[in-house]
Amino acid sequence: MNINGQHYRTIWTATNRRTVQIIDQTLLPHRFETVDLNKVEDAATAISDMLVRGAPLIGATAAYGYALAARTDPSDAHLAKAYDHLLAARPTAVNLRWALDRLRAHLAPIAPEDRETAAYKLAALICDEDVQMCASMGMHGHALIEIIAQSKAEGEPINILTHCNAGWLATVDWGTALAPIYKAHEAGMNVHVWVDETRPRNQGASLTAWELANHGVPHTLIVDNAGGHLMQHGLVDMCFVGTDRTTGSGDVCNKIGTYLKALAAHDNNIPFYVCAPSPSIDWSMQNGLKEMPIEERSGDEVTKLTGLTDAGNLETITIVAEGTTANNYAFDVTPRKYITGLITERGVCDANRTALGELFPEHM
Amino acid sequence: MNINGQHYRTIWTATNRRTVQIIDQTLLPHRFETVDLNKVEDAATAISDMLVRGAPLIGATAAYGYALAARTDPSDAHLAKAYDHLLAARPTAVNLRWALDRLRAHLAPIAPEDRETAAYKLAALICDEDVQMCASMGMHGHALIEIIAQSKAEGEPINILTHCNAGWLATVDWGTALAPIYKAHEAGMNVHVWVDETRPRNQGASLTAWELANHGVPHTLIVDNAGGHLMQHGLVDMCFVGTDRTTGSGDVCNKIGTYLKALAAHDNNIPFYVCAPSPSIDWSMQNGLKEMPIEERSGDEVTKLTGLTDAGNLETITIVAEGTTANNYAFDVTPRKYITGLITERGVCDANRTALGELFPEHM
Repeated sequence: MNINGQHYRTIWTATNRRTVQIIDQTLLPHRFETVDLNKVEDAATAISDMLVRGAPLIGATAAYGYALAARTDPSDAHLAKAYDHLLAARPTAVNLRWALDRLRAHLAPIAPEDRETAAYKLAALICDEDVQMCASMGMHGHALIEIIAQSKAEGEPINILTHCNAGWLATVDWGTALAPIYKAHEAGMNVHVWVDETRPRNQGASLTAWELANHGVPHTLIVDNAGGHLMQHGLVDMCFVGTDRTTGSGDVCNKIGTYLKALAAHDNNIPFYVCAPSPSIDWSMQNGLKEMPIEERSGDEVTKLTGLTDAGNLETITIVAEGTTANNYAFDVTPRKYITGLITERGVCDANRTALGELFPEHM
Repeated sequence: MNINGQHYRTIWTATNRRTVQIIDQTLLPHRFETVDLNKVEDAATAISDMLVRGAPLIGATAAYGYALAARTDPSDAHLAKAYDHLLAARPTAVNLRWALDRLRAHLAPIAPEDRETAAYKLAALICDEDVQMCASMGMHGHALIEIIAQSKAEGEPINILTHCNAGWLATVDWGTALAPIYKAHEAGMNVHVWVDETRPRNQGASLTAWELANHGVPHTLIVDNAGGHLMQHGLVDMCFVGTDRTTGSGDVCNKIGTYLKALAAHDNNIPFYVCAPSPSIDWSMQNGLKEMPIEERSGDEVTKLTGLTDAGNLETITIVAEGTTANNYAFDVTPRKYITGLITERGVCDANRTALGELFPEHM
């Protein structure tokens, strides 16, 4: 999507076609800087330090990380080490393993001297596929917005609530949850987005608000506490969220707090859609609450915040008394019964194994 | 309760028995400073600048403010001016008008030369009554914790979730929602408190965590998004929250986000109690969602945060891109069907008009 009127993807290769470039998302919304990745270690650090985040973009970065490894040393031993190194960078995102498995399987039968070129080609293909997948979800989700629009008065905005950042910054382009919104906006619809701040890392405040602003989509920031009140008072028409991992049975693991919004949507009869590209679906899982591993991150993410001082400097502050400790689960699971529908690249379906199986028979 | 092992109330008179002293709560949790109030203007400023906050403490401060006015000049004309001045400090706070009306009615028939003593006496009584009311709610709530404790294994903590600050800092002592926890802790029970950060003003992170730490009650800070996940995984045994206004029918208006926690507690069969002292009950209201006025505050409370830099300075930072606007509803309404019980100073009852009427027949 656009930054200052110029089109960007979140990951691309430099003119040498080997150096990988990304946006350092830890500096957003205050600074826009790109970073060069030249070694597999750079890619792993970019993932673990969250310069890139969002399951699809993590997958794409891992793919290019594997390509960078093949560039340095295409031997089986080195690629096996690279695989482990990249896989350890983030525990929850299923796309990470999916991308690495795909690269590994593809390169294994290829002669070492041909692996670098093949790896870069496949990484680029994974990126292009992701863009295509997001664009398809955008199209299917746009159709759902059109249905809601029919019940609105002329000129009345369609209010859509989203949690965290499942925008183009979380993917290669378009986004997952925001793709339908971008498609609707580009089609001239009057959409307005309620952007959940998304504590503790504030991806809504710092990324979603930033990318919507840059692409010109009307939006308002709210604290995570506010969505229920807005829904009670008719100020939310529908919800779109992303997913880090979806079980084959339709339970959704997404950023902590998603479950609370799903409960509120359910309580107020508001459609709650999850944009779930098929690589995010873990077909082997039956029960998200019981089986999903939930990443626990440092409490410092809760107790310290970074922002811009009046003098224009980036400063980190502590918002609690010395000695206050915080707990920081990064994700929660929304049971399928609270999900109106899953928006996949092949269409929209109910959140259950039968419905998913009709769209993806090859996984049944 | 205790600060560094020393007992404090939130408001008291100095050894001269005339100067009123308070804690400057705007500096918490980073600095503990007390402030002298010597004139009615000092009391009004303490209320308007939120050095004191919480409806009961605002009422107590107004009462002492009126006494300070009587000390300076007990004439009818001066007291009338003092009344207006104090009332304007937070014109919507119910307890403020209630305390002032009580002082005014009490002093009116008394000879001017006796008014100072009478005013200080009544202000002290209002404080003592508040302490007694909170202690009673604490006792009733403690009994509920005892019931939960019976189902826990020996040595297992009772995990209690709370939202915002309904602790002793919001009252004269004990607090409302935290009173049962303090009572249980003093009785030697193994209680542990999940403290919701409570965006946007972070009263949980800065006040609740601070007061629990100072009194020695085990607690852990969490983001507002986390409570649902904790409840899904058996990590919350019960919830206690306060209320800003409760309808006579049992709907509860409290800090924004309370509703979301009530939904999650309901979904996971976890008791959700509201500590509602009778002065917070609006007997005339029938339907909280339809009738409750919800204050909308400045979006700056969402986009700017104050805390301590590594260098030890208090600094305010902006956490969003320039141009991002935020919406800031301060409260939401939790419908009575999601409330397990109301804890009043007269006992615990179901959240409905019949049950409330049995405890408070004089209002029926």
